[in-house]
Amino acid sequence: MNGRPEAPVAPVEAYEPPYSVAVFTTVRTQEQSDYSETDARMEDLVKDVPGFLGMDHAQTPGGLGITVGYFRDADALTKWRTNAEHRAAQRGGQAEWYQSYTLHVAKVARSHGFMRAQTLRSPTAG
Amino acid sequence: MNGRPEAPVAPVEAYEPPYSVAVFTTVRTQEQSDYSETDARMEDLVKDVPGFLGMDHAQTPGGLGITVGYFRDADALTKWRTNAEHRAAQRGGQAEWYQSYTLHVAKVARSHGFMRAQTLRSPTAG
Repeated sequence: MNGRPEAPVAPVEAYEPPYSVAVFTTVRTQEQSDYSETDARMEDLVKDVPGFLGMDHAQTPGGLGITVGYFRDADALTKWRTNAEHRAAQRGGQAEWYQSYTLHVAKVARSHGFMRAQTLRSPTAG
Repeated sequence: MNGRPEAPVAPVEAYEPPYSVAVFTTVRTQEQSDYSETDARMEDLVKDVPGFLGMDHAQTPGGLGITVGYFRDADALTKWRTNAEHRAAQRGGQAEWYQSYTLHVAKVARSHGFMRAQTLRSPTAG
């Protein structure tokens, strides 16, 4: 989902509540024609939604995929849900790409993040 | 996270709101001693929490891990958060296993699921 393997991997930061979260958990079918193009297009498109805060994704090979989208409020999420291109992709998902999925839309009440302190590098190592 | 590779993979079902969800997104360090034992123990332990509904997990190799736990209400989640063994594991996570993580605790307002209809098998195929 990133395309820049040299960039350090990190989760979307924890924002000050309240904000909205959409948890989309999927099992894919064998039929994945056009999936990756559509997925990449959706990833671009969602960034244009006013109030979109960020998205995390994890995919177990041959297993579950989980995508978590963060939005400023329910209105921002509604804009994304009802976007015409996104609606077409949703139909493609049911028609072809997903064996099963769940979507949970929720209002965040509490959040926090942890980031390990950087290890100092020896000047001679660089 | 399953140990039964023959079982069909499927997300935790969508429950009737309201219920609580905890989204835990992690990047792991190189130091993973005792991680898998602790992880397996936590997976067993959370099942004993009254009001625990289920858990989904996805792990991109070398990338993000996302674990989503579903609970009947905020009280059930508080019981899990304050469980003594879980607290010890949280300390281990900060000391050793995680480079970074975020936790988002939220109240689900809306959910739905999709499951593809089963394909009929030919009687001669079985």
